[in-house]
Amino acid sequence: MKLQLAIDVLTSEEALVLAKKTSKYIDIIEIGTPLIKHEGVRLISLMKALHPKKELLVDLKTMDVGEYEADFCFEAGADIVTVLGVADIKTIEGAIVSAKKHGKKVVVDMINVADKITRAKEVAELGADYVGIHSGIDQQNAGQSPLADLKKLSKAVDIPLVVAGGINLDTLDEIIACKPEVVVVGGAITGAKNPKKIAKKISKKIRKAS
Amino acid sequence: MKLQLAIDVLTSEEALVLAKKTSKYIDIIEIGTPLIKHEGVRLISLMKALHPKKELLVDLKTMDVGEYEADFCFEAGADIVTVLGVADIKTIEGAIVSAKKHGKKVVVDMINVADKITRAKEVAELGADYVGIHSGIDQQNAGQSPLADLKKLSKAVDIPLVVAGGINLDTLDEIIACKPEVVVVGGAITGAKNPKKIAKKISKKIRKAS
Repeated sequence: MKLQLAIDVLTSEEALVLAKKTSKYIDIIEIGTPLIKHEGVRLISLMKALHPKKELLVDLKTMDVGEYEADFCFEAGADIVTVLGVADIKTIEGAIVSAKKHGKKVVVDMINVADKITRAKEVAELGADYVGIHSGIDQQNAGQSPLADLKKLSKAVDIPLVVAGGINLDTLDEIIACKPEVVVVGGAITGAKNPKKIAKKISKKIRKAS
Repeated sequence: MKLQLAIDVLTSEEALVLAKKTSKYIDIIEIGTPLIKHEGVRLISLMKALHPKKELLVDLKTMDVGEYEADFCFEAGADIVTVLGVADIKTIEGAIVSAKKHGKKVVVDMINVADKITRAKEVAELGADYVGIHSGIDQQNAGQSPLADLKKLSKAVDIPLVVAGGINLDTLDEIIACKPEVVVVGGAITGAKNPKKIAKKISKKIRKAS
């Protein structure tokens, strides 16, 4: 089981400092969607140069031109990109084509997909590396959590799962019990007074469960 | 009726040159989704500084944190942003809240929305400024065009429509006949040997129909 840090600040300076403080405990560094839109691909190259041994995920949430968007992120140094499960299947296929071409990986993010089991099976068949179970921040604010979907999908599908959506030290045990491949933590670490300390605690729980 | 130029190149240099060449004939300059992800908000400020009298749209295609993403684009100089119709309704609402706060505008992009008429009515009720009828590039490559949806929605809903998806000089007349508020042209101008000449021709047809 891996720990992914979702970096949800807006500037490259803050993002690079957060990664520096916590990287010892993190397996995958994520450049979040607002952050990539705010800072652009230059941050991908900077982050990879500073953390060459970590996996680097860019949360593109691609909705069109799947191959085109994935291509330029992989070329800048990303190891994993995301594409939306609600996108046209050709867009998802394009992101997967790009990943295979570069020897890299794709997460299909199931945010707001109505029939998640069917879509997860379709994208597994196409060669996606992971399916992402994800409650958005706007959904978390309305009371949703990814746990119910994680339980359902972990029984129904055979593709590695990434789980994200407001996960913190209090909710971590229930998430870990479902044995996802990757646990994504954002605000619980990036918003902490001492991000390193919280990252260490979360990492310890994940190591123990692996 | 307005003409929007969708700039779908990847570098700020190319984008700024394309805008400079064609701006005389363009009402709305669009920074496309891959371009904002590649270059970040700095391009918004540059483009607005160079074209202060043009409307500037950033094709964010927001899927989460609607208010957060729209906020930083409006603050950088955007006049209009897009949010995905497939997003959670709270995300769409967030983008609209941001637009009202800044005195700016939101397009809800109907790409891949199953029931477009119902969603268009919902977002009109929430205060969205435009609904975007949009066949993605991956969908165009699979033979789709936005015309059928445009015809259907222009009869069924009362909100101004923006139409996009492979529109060129050959298909423009049929699009204009449906009286959308904004016609978006991308590759037909940006991929032309002489972008200014094609922009002028398309603009002339749109002026005549207005």
